[in-house]
Amino acid sequence: MGGLENGATNNQNSSPTTTKPTKTSLSPDSMINLDQGDPTLFEPFWRKMGDKCTLVIEGCDLMSYFSDISNICWFLQPQLGDAIKRLHRVVGNAVTEDRNIVVGTGSTQLLMAALYALSSPADRHPVSLVAAAPFYSGYKDQAEFLRSGLYKWEGDAHTFEKDGPYIEVVTSPNNPDGAIREAVVNRGEGKLVYDLAYYWPQYTPITQPLDLDIMLFTFSKCTGHAGSRIGWALVKDKEVATKMTEYMQISSIGVSKESQIRAAKILGVLGEGCRTADSENFFEYSHSILKERWERLRNVVKNSRVFSLPKYPRDYCNFTGKYMDSSPAFAWLHSKEDIDWESRLREHKIIARSGERFGASPKYVRISMFSPPEAFNLFLERLSAIIDNTTGNVVT
Amino acid sequence: MGGLENGATNNQNSSPTTTKPTKTSLSPDSMINLDQGDPTLFEPFWRKMGDKCTLVIEGCDLMSYFSDISNICWFLQPQLGDAIKRLHRVVGNAVTEDRNIVVGTGSTQLLMAALYALSSPADRHPVSLVAAAPFYSGYKDQAEFLRSGLYKWEGDAHTFEKDGPYIEVVTSPNNPDGAIREAVVNRGEGKLVYDLAYYWPQYTPITQPLDLDIMLFTFSKCTGHAGSRIGWALVKDKEVATKMTEYMQISSIGVSKESQIRAAKILGVLGEGCRTADSENFFEYSHSILKERWERLRNVVKNSRVFSLPKYPRDYCNFTGKYMDSSPAFAWLHSKEDIDWESRLREHKIIARSGERFGASPKYVRISMFSPPEAFNLFLERLSAIIDNTTGNVVT
Repeated sequence: MGGLENGATNNQNSSPTTTKPTKTSLSPDSMINLDQGDPTLFEPFWRKMGDKCTLVIEGCDLMSYFSDISNICWFLQPQLGDAIKRLHRVVGNAVTEDRNIVVGTGSTQLLMAALYALSSPADRHPVSLVAAAPFYSGYKDQAEFLRSGLYKWEGDAHTFEKDGPYIEVVTSPNNPDGAIREAVVNRGEGKLVYDLAYYWPQYTPITQPLDLDIMLFTFSKCTGHAGSRIGWALVKDKEVATKMTEYMQISSIGVSKESQIRAAKILGVLGEGCRTADSENFFEYSHSILKERWERLRNVVKNSRVFSLPKYPRDYCNFTGKYMDSSPAFAWLHSKEDIDWESRLREHKIIARSGERFGASPKYVRISMFSPPEAFNLFLERLSAIIDNTTGNVVT
Repeated sequence: MGGLENGATNNQNSSPTTTKPTKTSLSPDSMINLDQGDPTLFEPFWRKMGDKCTLVIEGCDLMSYFSDISNICWFLQPQLGDAIKRLHRVVGNAVTEDRNIVVGTGSTQLLMAALYALSSPADRHPVSLVAAAPFYSGYKDQAEFLRSGLYKWEGDAHTFEKDGPYIEVVTSPNNPDGAIREAVVNRGEGKLVYDLAYYWPQYTPITQPLDLDIMLFTFSKCTGHAGSRIGWALVKDKEVATKMTEYMQISSIGVSKESQIRAAKILGVLGEGCRTADSENFFEYSHSILKERWERLRNVVKNSRVFSLPKYPRDYCNFTGKYMDSSPAFAWLHSKEDIDWESRLREHKIIARSGERFGASPKYVRISMFSPPEAFNLFLERLSAIIDNTTGNVVT
C-alpha cells in the first residue's frame, strides 16, 4: 500500500517542498521531507528507456465506461490484465493462474473494496479489522473515516482477543519496518488480505510465488509510477472479486483507462527488461540505488549505541538467482533513549513519521528511503550530527 | 452524475453486449441495452479532430503523487484546473472566480467526498441525505453501501420532514427526467450539493452562469469521455474543499494524472472549437445528434394516447445566442396505463430502467438517448410496434 497516508488531515507542513522533488535545490537550512514514500527517485530509469514506454492516446480512444464485459471486473483493460500476469510469472512473486484480477485507483481503493467484500450488511456487528503493529498508518484512517457499520478498526493483531469474525491485513514486506510477515491471529472466522506492495525484487528477495486468497499490489511501488493511481488485486474467490468490483462501481464507476493502458505498457517493458542486459533491468537498477542508500545509512547508524535499524535475514532470491539483502522502502529507526524521535528529528529539520502513527512507540520513526539524492545526502549529514551529539555514542 | 449506476449488483444481464457499442451488429432478435448512459455516440467527433487531441506521455512523466502542493487539492494537475476555468468561461454555465477546484475519479467519487465534507463525526446522528424524486438511482446506493454513520439516505426531498441538519442533492438538468431544478427543502440547517453533469449546451439551454456552494461536473457527460473517470467540483468554501480533498486522499490518494492531463487537452480543444466553425464545435455537433433523436422519438410517441414524454420549455441559450429546446441524455417515458414499463419493454427486447429505481412509479421508465445509431433505430421500430399494439392509440 502507498506511503502517502497523512492521517485525517491535509497537513501542508508534512508535504515535500516541491512537486518535482528530483529538481529540489536544498540549502543547509532547508526542511527535508522524509515523511512520504513518493517514488520519484526511479524517474531516471524510465527517462533512459525513451520511446519504448511512450504512450500515444488519440482523442477518440477509451471513451466507454466498459473494457470487457465478459470479465467480472468489467472495467479492467484486457492488456493490463495480461501485463500483470506476465510480470508476476517473470518475477515469480505471485500465482496468477485461475485468479480474478480487480483493478483499483491504487491499492488504497482496493483495500476499501476488500473490506466491503469481506463484510456483510446482514451481520449484527461490524467485522473487526486488525493488523500486527507496527502497521501501515493508513489502514486505521481508511477503516474509520466514514464510520462504516460494516467493519471496525481494532488495532494491533497481537493483542486482539475479541470473538467473532475478523479481517487481518498482512503487509509483507511490512510498511513501516520491512519485515516479512505472516498472519498473527489465525482463527477459523478470520479472513486475510495480503498487502504485497513491496514484494518486488528491489526491496526484498523473492523466495516463493505467493498463493493467497486476496493479494494487493500497486504500480506506485512496483515501478515508481505513483501519479497513475493503479493497483491490482489477485483474488481467488469469484464472489469476493464480484463484490470488490461492485465497490469500485458504486464509489467511482471503474478506474481510469488512460492509467490502465499506460501501466500495461510500462509493466510490459519492465517484464521484457528482466530478460535482458542489466542496464535495462529495472529491478537491478532500483535495487542498486536502495542497496547503496541502506549501506550508507547503516554506516552512519553503526556509530551510535543509542540508535538502531532492523536487521533482515539474507535470503536466496529466485528472481535474481542470488543471495540478497533486503533494502526496504522505509527505514524504521529505533532509539534506546526515551525520546520522541519525530520531534527530535524535526528540530534538525528532518520530517519523518512517528512510530505512534504505526501503533508503536514514539521511540521509533519511519524514514522514507525514496527521497531525491540531495535530500538523502543532507539527511545522512544531519543524522550523523545528531548521533555525534547523543550520549552513549561510539567515540570515533 | 454518471448514468451507469447498476444498483448494488454487477448485473451482467443489463450490460451492453459489446465493449465498443458503435461497432455492434444487431439482428432483429438482439436485446437492445438502453439502461446505461455510455456516451460513445460522441466518438466520431473526436476521431474527426485528429491530432489536435492526441496525447503523448513519456515513461518518466507524471510519477509523483503530487501535482501542486500550494493548492488545497494538491493532486490537481494545474493545466486541468486552467482548462476547466476557461471552458466554464466560454460556455457561461458556472462561476469559477475564487472557487476551489477539487478533481475526482468521476463526479461519483466527488459526491461521496461532498457527503464526507458536509457531515461531522462529532454529530450524534447521521445527517439526512435527500433528493427530489425522481432522483438519480446511484445516490441511494452511494449513501447506503458502506452503512456510514455520517449520513443517512432519507429518499424523496418532497416528503422529507425530519428535523435537524440535512444535505439535499439537486440534479439539474435532472437525471432521469431532464427537468431544470432548484432546491426543494429550503431550511436553515440544509446544505446543498448541485450535480450539474448535464448543464452543458448539447442537453439544455444555458440560461445563466450558476453561482452555488458546491457544483459537480463530469468529463463523461461534457465531452463523452466516460472511460477517463474525471469529474470536478467547484467549491466556494475552503474548509469544504479541504475535507473533500481529504476524502480523496484517504480513499484513493488522488486521481489519475494521465486522465487529468488528457481531460485538460480535450477540454482545451473543446473550448477553442466553440469559437470557430460549426464543424469544429462539439456542442453544436452533439446537440444536433440528440435533437434529431428527440424529434424522432417524439414523432413515435405522439401516436400514442397512453405513452408520453416530458415537455421542456423553450429557452434562450446564452451560449448559442438562440432560443433552444432541451434534448436530455435520457428520455423519461410515462405510461397512463397501470403497467410495469420495464418488464413490458424487456418482453420486446429493450432493456431500460424502471421508474421505481428513481423513487418514482413503475409506470415510468428511463431510456438512454446515448445508444449507438443502429440500436436507437431498432428501439424506435420496436417502440412503434408496442404503441401500435396498445389500446387507446391514435389510429393512423
